[in-house]
Amino acid sequence: MDQEQLVGLAATVNDDLASRIDFMLEIDKLKGILRRSRIVDGSRFENTAEHSWHLAMAAMIFGPLAGPDVDLQRTIEILLVHDIVEIDAGDTYIYDADASAHENKEAAENAAAERIFNLLPQEAATHIAELWAEYEERSTPTARFAYAIDRLQPLLLNGGSGGVSWTENGIKHSQAAAVNSPIGLASPELWQLAEKILATAADDGLLVDDRP
Amino acid sequence: MDQEQLVGLAATVNDDLASRIDFMLEIDKLKGILRRSRIVDGSRFENTAEHSWHLAMAAMIFGPLAGPDVDLQRTIEILLVHDIVEIDAGDTYIYDADASAHENKEAAENAAAERIFNLLPQEAATHIAELWAEYEERSTPTARFAYAIDRLQPLLLNGGSGGVSWTENGIKHSQAAAVNSPIGLASPELWQLAEKILATAADDGLLVDDRP
Repeated sequence: MDQEQLVGLAATVNDDLASRIDFMLEIDKLKGILRRSRIVDGSRFENTAEHSWHLAMAAMIFGPLAGPDVDLQRTIEILLVHDIVEIDAGDTYIYDADASAHENKEAAENAAAERIFNLLPQEAATHIAELWAEYEERSTPTARFAYAIDRLQPLLLNGGSGGVSWTENGIKHSQAAAVNSPIGLASPELWQLAEKILATAADDGLLVDDRP
Repeated sequence: MDQEQLVGLAATVNDDLASRIDFMLEIDKLKGILRRSRIVDGSRFENTAEHSWHLAMAAMIFGPLAGPDVDLQRTIEILLVHDIVEIDAGDTYIYDADASAHENKEAAENAAAERIFNLLPQEAATHIAELWAEYEERSTPTARFAYAIDRLQPLLLNGGSGGVSWTENGIKHSQAAAVNSPIGLASPELWQLAEKILATAADDGLLVDDRP
């Protein structure tokens, strides 16, 4: 038995179900996409599927720190789907200084969204595409809170696992402060914590200390 | 830098935040809890964190197949938290015939819930405990739909990865049919698919064929 046969079995129930099963099996591949952050025990890199779960949990847990115009249920949905495009486009390291890497990323992610979301029946595909677009554009308080969560969680992982992903990539304090500053747009309290983590990491030599 | 130091930094912001950070770092351990199902490409066992993400996605994707009395947003929250107790209690294989394993499991999971959820501030701890209790009791249509999703997803993984987790554990068709029958309580359509998967698996020798 394999993926194709399962979709075929679902098609004997109806085509709508077959589309949904195809998508569910396809997104399983997100479990094989590795990020640069290690899990807290330091034993291995985090994959994007478990990262997405951790972010959805973070939205629940940090929800009370969000502004009143943030839709927390939608934040959870956005975070569940926001990295699915990495199945085709891969994970792009946030500290990658190569501008062309980020440009290529955008084209690759748009193509991935087109392919993967459209495995679903039209209405479901549109819903997920809208969640993803809202995240990418960060045009709403909800999307900005989701983005803040997505910046904070790697700080917790990197800090919790001894800062290895900072040291092995030679990340500077100024880079980390710039990349993480959107946290401040969504939650002053979480940004206060982020600043303390970054200052401590620079104090301890885990980030290159280029503070003025 | 480590988990304890991060919680200490959060405590310099305030104690409420420190509790939330402590919980977020603690539940990272779910990424190290392995299940018996393989991911679809067959390369390794699935861990419980990525499993929880896949289930939350399934709730979104199969939502239109749920009855009108199912709260889909709550289904997602339930599925995100339902296995956190495995951090202390471990994963219990659904086909484990040893009744004492299931009794011990209940006590261990209750103790785990007590320890882990109560890392959070009171209100958040209560919310998550309620979600978990609703799942365990299956007293609502929402919890029964969540449970159906949690039964169906391993069928998709086992089927998609060639049925290895069935063959290596010698699972019978009758066992699989019994364990998965709650799917039918939540969605006749998903149960129709599950029955076809199990029949095909028995036809192909992936399940021991004890059909009458």
